[in-house]
Amino acid sequence: MKTDTPVDFETFFSARARALQSSVIRETLKITERPEIISFAGGLPAPETFPVREMLAALERVLTRRGADALQYSTTEGFAPLREWIAARKGTPEAPVRPDQVLIVSGSQQGLDLLAKALIDPGDRVLVETPTYLGALQAFSLFGPRFVSIASDADGLMPETLSEPLRGAKFLYCLPNFQNPTGRLLAEERRHRLAEKARELDFIILEDDPYGDLSYAGGAPCSIRSLAPERTVYMGSFSKILSPGIRLGYLIAPDVLHAKLVQAKQATDLHTSTLSQMAAYEVVKDGFLEGHIPAIRKLYGDQCRAMLDALSRHMPDGVRWSSPKGGMFLWAELPRGMDATKLMRRAVETARVAFMPGEPFYAENPAPETLRLAFVTAPRPRIEEGIERLAGLIRAGC
Amino acid sequence: MKTDTPVDFETFFSARARALQSSVIRETLKITERPEIISFAGGLPAPETFPVREMLAALERVLTRRGADALQYSTTEGFAPLREWIAARKGTPEAPVRPDQVLIVSGSQQGLDLLAKALIDPGDRVLVETPTYLGALQAFSLFGPRFVSIASDADGLMPETLSEPLRGAKFLYCLPNFQNPTGRLLAEERRHRLAEKARELDFIILEDDPYGDLSYAGGAPCSIRSLAPERTVYMGSFSKILSPGIRLGYLIAPDVLHAKLVQAKQATDLHTSTLSQMAAYEVVKDGFLEGHIPAIRKLYGDQCRAMLDALSRHMPDGVRWSSPKGGMFLWAELPRGMDATKLMRRAVETARVAFMPGEPFYAENPAPETLRLAFVTAPRPRIEEGIERLAGLIRAGC
Repeated sequence: MKTDTPVDFETFFSARARALQSSVIRETLKITERPEIISFAGGLPAPETFPVREMLAALERVLTRRGADALQYSTTEGFAPLREWIAARKGTPEAPVRPDQVLIVSGSQQGLDLLAKALIDPGDRVLVETPTYLGALQAFSLFGPRFVSIASDADGLMPETLSEPLRGAKFLYCLPNFQNPTGRLLAEERRHRLAEKARELDFIILEDDPYGDLSYAGGAPCSIRSLAPERTVYMGSFSKILSPGIRLGYLIAPDVLHAKLVQAKQATDLHTSTLSQMAAYEVVKDGFLEGHIPAIRKLYGDQCRAMLDALSRHMPDGVRWSSPKGGMFLWAELPRGMDATKLMRRAVETARVAFMPGEPFYAENPAPETLRLAFVTAPRPRIEEGIERLAGLIRAGC
Repeated sequence: MKTDTPVDFETFFSARARALQSSVIRETLKITERPEIISFAGGLPAPETFPVREMLAALERVLTRRGADALQYSTTEGFAPLREWIAARKGTPEAPVRPDQVLIVSGSQQGLDLLAKALIDPGDRVLVETPTYLGALQAFSLFGPRFVSIASDADGLMPETLSEPLRGAKFLYCLPNFQNPTGRLLAEERRHRLAEKARELDFIILEDDPYGDLSYAGGAPCSIRSLAPERTVYMGSFSKILSPGIRLGYLIAPDVLHAKLVQAKQATDLHTSTLSQMAAYEVVKDGFLEGHIPAIRKLYGDQCRAMLDALSRHMPDGVRWSSPKGGMFLWAELPRGMDATKLMRRAVETARVAFMPGEPFYAENPAPETLRLAFVTAPRPRIEEGIERLAGLIRAGC
């Protein structure tokens, strides 16, 4: 018998696990937990938008009336009344949603994992925006795709660049509304052309829409799903309108794909928390969101304006930024030659202000001068202060 | 532009998705939801063991005192006080557990998915008991292993059959305590020999222990982890002692592997519900389980005895069954030549009683005459009635 010599786990890891790296977001979030840091990094929804009282009242009703059901195993597809509510809310006359097309997931990040499981073989081409959501790159990467970064500008990805050589790609992943990380909105006309291109080149569209409700002026262009329901998976979330901590999202998928995603979810975690599903349904079922979402829009719109004002006041020439019409983020570019990752380290160390460098959001050819600023976590006076500090560092050429 | 002709999703599915099949457990659970069916199939914990009142009181405290934290994103590793509680509870003087070795997961089924992601490359050998937990076969299968079914008897897997040709296997997966599906306990002496074999042949052990607390006489042999902590991942669950519906489990892993599992979990679902973690901690932190677990043991022990009595009274010669010392299941064998899958269909249709055929629990060479009976879901009078009906069918030779 050998003694308990150390085990060389590196030799046990799968190829996909060896390729996994610690996330920049994750490490940054750890730093920015310190209270002295003004954080524009993490993208945590403003806690004052969490309906704590309503959630508690809902949990009381659910546990008092149906406690044994709420704490028991339940079906993989999800709590039927919640699926019905989602179908009614997300369906349109042109593209209705049946409840049996809805799969409840443990946050829409899990939707990305399940879709990757169901669709990606090693080497498959996956089309993404430039830049795109880092968490999607991470989820997909575990399954060994080849990313193809689609040319994109301030109006989102450019469908005219999708051409014949991309035939055979498995899917295109995009966030049409107030994208993470850029805050941009995919122009309506491009949505139509994207749907056409998907049919022409025969790929699936994954439409990730966690921010669609957060339009400051209210409303948003038609969903991509409504334009190509037969080949689009729509991913929704309760994280930005109710609570991210309860981990609740959903997929709306064409039937054959839906059935496969259900099987994948069963093997992955059986089902999403019964209690969370029942409580969320109890909160939303009587129209709570009709008053709540406008309040979040107002708050985030005000905070966005506060950051834009602060940027205008303090940033030196050569710094540029976007003006989002919704969502939680804006996107900035430093003067050419500056590196946002280096700036972030200096900013945290010397100015106690944090943001996300843009680099990890690129599947290919990162732009080192880009960065993401979240304006929803820090309250308004801190936004002003944080931007002023950051501008000071940039001006000093750090 | 092409019109919206139907999409042939089969051509888009990954190889792993094409191999996925609908689970027998899942289909059976659907049937057995009908109230007229007496179900020994699903393995749902008895709802009277759910601490509904305590859970509600815990949620009230958590949401009243720390509502904004409970509904916010949190760290991938899990809620620190819960990790500390688990470390203190599961550590022994010989094999202590540090809180930073604990990873909270969304039910221990998710632990299986994360371990498969971190360890399995296509074609890797994975050693399993004969038979073993169906959910583990499903979770691992998505990553393309070659299963090797290790000879096992009423005392669990037989370590003496682990020999040189198995060198290079990635890991051995086992449920030492009151195994699903057989209810058997891995003999203490075999635990020692298994730990030795793992060191000798250099494989990792995944010790899945959802039922360890459910020993009717109290206590269980030492954990495998305590015998080889440097190469064992211990998987625990709150599903059988608190609530399966909240989806809460944990992994205790050696440091290097723990770090990789955290990365895999971040890509998979960011983190487990903050609210569920804080509420569960609030329920258990002051010793609630010290009274609660003995009550569950008593109930399940009584129900097990009721089923054993009914089997003795009603079953014809040639039917054999196990006598579990804990857990939720017993394992039976029909007279040679009978097929449990066929019997199940007849039983549901004509006798309105359900159970799980043994076949899907085998990685190789299924034994068609075996079946699993769960005695924790149906109350005692229904157990007697259901076994009587089932015995009638078997006697009739169906």
